[in-house]
This record gives sequence, C-alpha cells and structure tokens, in this order.
Amino acid sequence: MTRALFVGRFQPFHNGHLQAVKEILRDCQEAVIAVGSSQESHAPENLFTVGERIEMIYESIKEAGLAGKVLIVGIPDIKYNALWAKHLMVLSPSFDVVYSNSPLVKQLFREEGLKVRPLKMVKRKEYDGTHIRAQMLAGKSWKQLIPAAAVKIAVKIKAEERMKEVCACDKA
Amino acid sequence: MTRALFVGRFQPFHNGHLQAVKEILRDCQEAVIAVGSSQESHAPENLFTVGERIEMIYESIKEAGLAGKVLIVGIPDIKYNALWAKHLMVLSPSFDVVYSNSPLVKQLFREEGLKVRPLKMVKRKEYDGTHIRAQMLAGKSWKQLIPAAAVKIAVKIKAEERMKEVCACDKA
Amino acid sequence: MTRALFVGRFQPFHNGHLQAVKEILRDCQEAVIAVGSSQESHAPENLFTVGERIEMIYESIKEAGLAGKVLIVGIPDIKYNALWAKHLMVLSPSFDVVYSNSPLVKQLFREEGLKVRPLKMVKRKEYDGTHIRAQMLAGKSWKQLIPAAAVKIAVKIKAEERMKEVCACDKA
Amino acid sequence: MTRALFVGRFQPFHNGHLQAVKEILRDCQEAVIAVGSSQESHAPENLFTVGERIEMIYESIKEAGLAGKVLIVGIPDIKYNALWAKHLMVLSPSFDVVYSNSPLVKQLFREEGLKVRPLKMVKRKEYDGTHIRAQMLAGKSWKQLIPAAAVKIAVKIKAEERMKEVCACDKA
Amino acid sequence: MTRALFVGRFQPFHNGHLQAVKEILRDCQEAVIAVGSSQESHAPENLFTVGERIEMIYESIKEAGLAGKVLIVGIPDIKYNALWAKHLMVLSPSFDVVYSNSPLVKQLFREEGLKVRPLKMVKRKEYDGTHIRAQMLAGKSWKQLIPAAAVKIAVKIKAEERMKEVCACDKA
Amino acid sequence: MTRALFVGRFQPFHNGHLQAVKEILRDCQEAVIAVGSSQESHAPENLFTVGERIEMIYESIKEAGLAGKVLIVGIPDIKYNALWAKHLMVLSPSFDVVYSNSPLVKQLFREEGLKVRPLKMVKRKEYDGTHIRAQMLAGKSWKQLIPAAAVKIAVKIKAEERMKEVCACDKA
Repeated sequence: MTRALFVGRFQPFHNGHLQAVKEILRDCQEAVIAVGSSQESHAPENLFTVGERIEMIYESIKEAGLAGKVLIVGIPDIKYNALWAKHLMVLSPSFDVVYSNSPLVKQLFREEGLKVRPLKMVKRKEYDGTHIRAQMLAGKSWKQLIPAAAVKIAVKIKAEERMKEVCACDKA
Repeated sequence: MTRALFVGRFQPFHNGHLQAVKEILRDCQEAVIAVGSSQESHAPENLFTVGERIEMIYESIKEAGLAGKVLIVGIPDIKYNALWAKHLMVLSPSFDVVYSNSPLVKQLFREEGLKVRPLKMVKRKEYDGTHIRAQMLAGKSWKQLIPAAAVKIAVKIKAEERMKEVCACDKA
Repeated sequence: MTRALFVGRFQPFHNGHLQAVKEILRDCQEAVIAVGSSQESHAPENLFTVGERIEMIYESIKEAGLAGKVLIVGIPDIKYNALWAKHLMVLSPSFDVVYSNSPLVKQLFREEGLKVRPLKMVKRKEYDGTHIRAQMLAGKSWKQLIPAAAVKIAVKIKAEERMKEVCACDKA
Repeated sequence: MTRALFVGRFQPFHNGHLQAVKEILRDCQEAVIAVGSSQESHAPENLFTVGERIEMIYESIKEAGLAGKVLIVGIPDIKYNALWAKHLMVLSPSFDVVYSNSPLVKQLFREEGLKVRPLKMVKRKEYDGTHIRAQMLAGKSWKQLIPAAAVKIAVKIKAEERMKEVCACDKA
Repeated sequence: MTRALFVGRFQPFHNGHLQAVKEILRDCQEAVIAVGSSQESHAPENLFTVGERIEMIYESIKEAGLAGKVLIVGIPDIKYNALWAKHLMVLSPSFDVVYSNSPLVKQLFREEGLKVRPLKMVKRKEYDGTHIRAQMLAGKSWKQLIPAAAVKIAVKIKAEERMKEVCACDKA
Repeated sequence: MTRALFVGRFQPFHNGHLQAVKEILRDCQEAVIAVGSSQESHAPENLFTVGERIEMIYESIKEAGLAGKVLIVGIPDIKYNALWAKHLMVLSPSFDVVYSNSPLVKQLFREEGLKVRPLKMVKRKEYDGTHIRAQMLAGKSWKQLIPAAAVKIAVKIKAEERMKEVCACDKA
C-alpha cells in the first residue's frame, strides 16, 4: 500500500486539483490532502476558512466517487521553515511520497529525506486559485472552474460577496 | 442531511468511541470526529501524535465499513476557553449538533447557541483511554479494547515501549 | 499628579478590591487597574472572561462615584516572567507606583526599578475570589461580597450555572 | 442603555476620531474604544505603544468632558481572521452596535450577526494617521490635528524623534 | 571530529554538570550545552533567566580551562513534544551524539534516529538543582555545590533573595 | 571588564562582520554576538537556520583566534517592538554597550537606557548579506566574501542549491 501527500492552500479547491488527485490515485492507493495556511481566511489571497476548504474538498471527492481513498488534514503555518516539513509529518497520517510543484515544499521535504514527485497540472491559467478569486471579485464566471459540489458550498457562504468585501481597501 | 460533531482526545481511539460513532450515525447522516489537544504527544496523558491518532481512527472507521460517512479533523489547544468552541467551528466543516459528555465542552458550545447531546458510552471502565494506557505501561492486555485496525498501528509505532519511556521520571 | 497601578485577576472584583481602590485614591490622583491572566475564562480558578471582568469593575467604579479616576486594562499572560513587568508597562498608561501583595509581582517590578507598596486588604477571608467562587459552586450566598453593580452582571451571565458546569469533572 | 464599539488603531488618536466619538455618543449612551494591533509599536505604520495610545485617548476624552462615558480596551492581533470579531467580543465589555468604515471589520462582525454602522469622518485627508505621521517625519506641523491633551503626551515621549529613527532604513 | 550535545535546564549549573562536561570531552572533541526551558525564570523550579544561566555556564567553563571546546545555546519550550528534538537540532550547531539521562529526551532523539548515551553523574543528591534551590530558600550553604565563577554571578543577582520572594505564596 | 553586544541576522556571517568583531574587541574585552530572527530559514532573505549561522560564526571566530572572547546567542523575533530590547537582554549574558548601525535597534536600546555605538563596516557593498546571497543565486563567486571556516559549512549544507530552490517562485 502506498499513501501520497498532496500539499496546497486550496483557495479554492478547483478542477485542476481534482484532476491531480485522480492522477495521484493512479500511482498510489491513498492520498492525504494537506490544507496549508489553515489559520488564514477572509483575505484576498486566502478567502476561505480551513473548515470551508475541507468541506469543499470532501464533497468534491465524494462526488468524484473517491471517498474512502482520500484523507484531508489542516496544517497551520508555523513561520519556522526548518520545522515545517516535520510539523506536517506529525499532523498527518504517515505517507510514502510527496506530490508538489512548489520548490520550497520540495526542498524542505528532500532535506527530511522524503521522496518528492512533480504534479501534472492541466489548464494552469484557468484552473488557478488566483484567477478564480479574481473572477469572483470582478463578478465574472468561475463556477465552471471548480467541482459542482464545491460550487454549492461557495454559494451558500456567499463567496463572491465576501471576496468583494475583503478586497475593499478603506482602513479604519 | 444532518452532520454531527464528536469531540475527544482519542488517546487512543477505542471500542467505546467506535460504538459511539455507530450510535451517532443512527441519528445523523455524517459525523465529524474532532481530535483535541492535537499538539500533544509523548506524554503519559497524551501518548500519540495527532497524525497517529487520525490514522488509527481512519483505519478503524474503514474496517467498520463507515468510510465516506466520517470526517476527521485535528484541533490544537488555544488555551483561551472563551474562543475554543468558535475555534473548533472554524477548523471543522459545518455541523448541526454536538455530541459530548464533557460539561466544559457542553457549556462552551451552548454559549455559542449550539445543540448538545449526551453520548451513550458502553463499558466505561474498560473502554477508557486512561485505563488502556495504564495497561500498556504495566505490560498487561489492551489489544482487545481497541479496534483491530488501530492495534496494528499502535504495534507498528511501538506504543508500549513509548508509554514506558515517557512515564519514566528521571529528569536531566 | 501621581498614577498608581493595581494588579490582580479579579475573579471576580469584590468589596475588598473596591476598598483597596479607595485606599489607593487617597494617596494617588488616578489608578490603573490591570486585569491579569486576561486570556483565561470558563475554568474553576478563572471563571469570567476579561471583557466580563472589565465590565464588572467599570460598573462598580461608576457606582462608587470614582469614574474618571480609574482606567482598566487587560493583561494577557506571556509565560515569560523576566519580561512580565515590562510587558505590563507597555500595555498600560504610565504609572508612578505599584500596589500589590504578591511577592512575585513585587519582585518583578522591583527588578525593573519601580516603587512598590503593600495593599491594605480588609476581611481577607470573605473578600476573596477563591471563597466567592466556592460559594457560587455550593449555591451559597455570595452577592453581599461583591459590589451591587457587579452582581447584576454576574447574574445576567449566569455565573453560578457556569461555575457548576466548569467544575464538573467528566472528561470526553 | 446602548453601548457602541468603535474600532481603530489610533496611530495616533486625532481630531477626526474625537469627532466620531462625539457623533457616536449622540446615538448611544456609552462607547468602547478598541485599540487594535495593540502589540505593535516603533514602526512607521505603528508608531506608539498601546499604553501610549490608551493614555492619549483617555486624556483627550477627559479634556472633552466625556469621561465616564467611554471605555478603552487594547486588542492584540491574532492573525486568524475567522476568530477576530469573536476575540474582540471576549476582550471587551458587551456592546450593541459596531461603528466602523473598514469593509473587513464590517464583514467579520456581520458574519457574527452584529449590527454595523458607518462612521461619519470629517476632513479625512488631514485627520488621518498616515498623514499625521508623515508630517512628524518631515518635521512639519501636526499638533493642530490631534487633541491638545494628546499633543502633550506625544511631546513627552518625543514622538517626532522616534518617527525619524524608526523610518531610517539602514539594516544591521 | 565528534561534537556532543548535553541537554539540561541548569537551574543552576552545578559541579555535577561540570563533571559531566569533562567526562563528555574525554570522548568527544566539542560539546554543545543546550539550556532548556529558556523562557522560564523567577519561579521556584526555574529561578534564573536563560541569559543568567548562559553567563554562569560560560564563566564556569572558562574557569575550568575548557573555553573554545564548549558552545552554549538556549532552547525555548515549544509544548509540542513530537517536534522538540528536531527543534533543538535546528537551534544548535550540528552534533553527533546526545548525552542525557532523561527517558523522554532519549526517546525523542531515538525516534529522530540519533545516538544517545547516558551521563555519569556524581553525588546526585547534593549536585542537584532542586537541592541547591532548597538550600538557597532555607538560607543554608549552597556555594560549595556550584563552580566559583557561577557563585559570583548568583551573588551579584541576589539569587537567595529572589528564591525567597518567588517562593512566597501570597497571591493578589 | 567590558562586554559588548553585536546584533545582526548574519545571513551569512561575512568578512565585514568579522572585521567589526575585531574592531569591537579593541574597545571591549568580550563580545556577545546576537543572531536575530533566529526562527527564520529557507527563505530568500533568511537562507540559513540559526544553528547553521551559529556554527559558521563559531568556526570563523576560532579560525581568527578569538575563541574564548566571543559568546553567541540566538534571538527569536517576538513581533512586539516595545519589548524587543528587553527580550534580548533576558536571552543574553549581561553587556555594557551595544554596537549597531540599525536606527531601530539603536532607538529601542536607547529607550531602555543603554549606551549605543556605531559600527565601522568596511567594503559595505561587497561585504553585505544581500549581495552574497544574490551571488549564490546567480552562481557567481561569493567564497572570498566570507571567512574560510564559514565557506566550509556553507558548502557542506549546499547553500547555493538551497538558495536557488527557495528563490524559485512556483507556488502550489
């Protein structure tokens, strides 16, 4: 049995992420999805709370028929890079290989002696958190870019409205 | 659809906890298991890391045929009781009802306006974390008290040996 | 103009504290009341939130006709004794003298080069936080021990009920 | 009785803030002034310590004849937006309505179910913290922009000199 | 070249510790002394600040003619056992072997894959931090139990007086 | 006996720093080197862990024949400027004078009542951390800019490779 780790912030979880999970599950029996910067929310770069992100991922995974093969864990920042990879290893069930395209993530796990593999990401310009949040802010279409199950949750918590409020810049 | 929250430290997850999950899933479609004091480990009262605890719960849930109905989240202590219930609500997918026998947990969630229900726990003297860790320390039988899938993990990480080391009291 | 500092946890603010404030205001024009362990609440030793404690003190001070002579500040613990006195000095308006009966508080301020004076406390057995909380827990009389304005707030937030819940010991 | 909350960083408390407090006290009997980012000081954007800011506000309030109607509390950042509004509610006496022009502050309190009202600010270009600190840095006039009682404190702690030092950029 | 790690709290550094350092330097060319619980001070169990402890160790090491063979680092607690050994490895120059008699320290380093050796401690009842602080509290002799260079510093900071103050128990 | 404090981040310790230490030791008998932002590493501005930085400084100091005159301490950021100078004073052996060219550091120590002196730095464009890291990133020569003993350690930990990885910008 091989278990993979897939690290991201998932602001929000989109079709590219789902595609990557399917790719990973071709090579490994199980995947842990680690939701980074879990303490962040209500900010232009970090719109959703970790609870909302976990719920979006969980429902998307069920919708895709992958329930039972995927575990989700939240990872708070520790602002202490030299301990970050080990910190993630303590917060997660054990895993055998890390999937990531982030050079920092790859460097930190390699220094811990772990195997790291690149992710094949499709349509990187559209399936991209920054792009999706920009579409929300502009009131343009974004629902076709994330799984239907995640759309339902984003609508329920009024993601578009929240994005507009947290991007307005008038400070007290 | 109703989602329940079940809070504990799960040091370790035992047959009584599994029984309680089954009970909860009779009333609700889904359960979130919140693993408290997630930063603690390697101590007499808190033997396992949160990653180990999540893995034990996850495998026990799969073994019991409940995969896809249960989500697991780690909850670090914040040493700030007045914010604890809200903190848990941010770290978890949304839920409708809280199951707990802890008066403090019940009080904190009630002050947040949430519904709280008691847990029916069976064989409370045997199915009890403190008792199970004491059996490990004494080198007595404990494997029949936790799910077989959890036993496998506890054995792999040498839980008995760790319990004996962290209970030895010679300080530097 | 002389401004005094008066440090305590005020769980809750009682008649002895009010007496001490009056005493201090005989020697000094103004007093800063520093509410320590401000992050604590919902615990047997620390029942009230800092907001609740500030509100009780503020209303008691107004009731006693001392408004405009007393400032209240919350002080979170920093678990770093060597910085604690300085930390308090940063969180508070400047002051000239410290009133306290705590040997540790006195030692820490003396090491910072500040003047420290003892407090004259009356009826120390009755006008005592631990005693008052024990009376709440036992359902015995406590309302005569704290200012009327503070009683009103304690009743509104159901202090007795909270004390009973947080002292119950059944853990999850 | 209605109590209002007024949130800001008050770097420093200026005539526009004082005007706003008077405005608020036309609608409400009492106001809590919440001094945000309380841990910050000695930086170009955050010049004064929270103790200094509280002292400036307190003296300005007394000077304006409003003592006894205004309470001041310091609020440390928690870098955890989803808990920030609740955190403020724990640190402050209870309040009925929030006055703010910050979209983020308004969004966070609205998600907690609180009433939020806009602030009428006068002369927004002059009565502005950033502008006042820039005047200090340039050695230009700023004393007419903040209450006389606050000027006295700013002069005593040598605000101009501190502003110049913390804006100099030579790093070790 | 072999570098050893020697972990303790050194409250205070005594003759037994010095003896142990000499012992270690028979097997290894260099030693790192890691001063744990560095944030603690002014408490019955943790009397000295980390700066005071480093100064006592440094002067004792010079007095013993070992300067240039010993490095001293402070280690703040992280209240996160699973990361503690790695945390220490990040804060210290690299080392090849750990000397400790603490079962927890030994267990945590062994789980990181490090070599651990026991310390030979002499006169364990007298050369013992708890005993030495108890002697200070009682006003009995303690100066013969720690190196002369450390005595000088302890006297300068009035260790006896501080011990008596922080052990007095009258709370505010 | 006079002991000096020399504060920096030392990313990495270079010939200009070593020159400054020698300069300081002409006026003072001993120097404490305080390594700031100790929790940072693996970032473009903060490449090395504090353990690595201490090791580089320690070996360079030995190489320069100054062992026994220099002590090294790590200083974690506290993000609380008003306490920073005092925090450093707690983490370090006592000192008599501070050497720094940072206006903020100088301002904070002056407010604590300490004597501050400027550093004479030579070849400031070349002997400069930012410049040295840029050379590493570009694969250009940097070894002549830092002490030979520090080069050896930087090579062992593959500093160039790490710099390139942490500067690559592809985020997960």
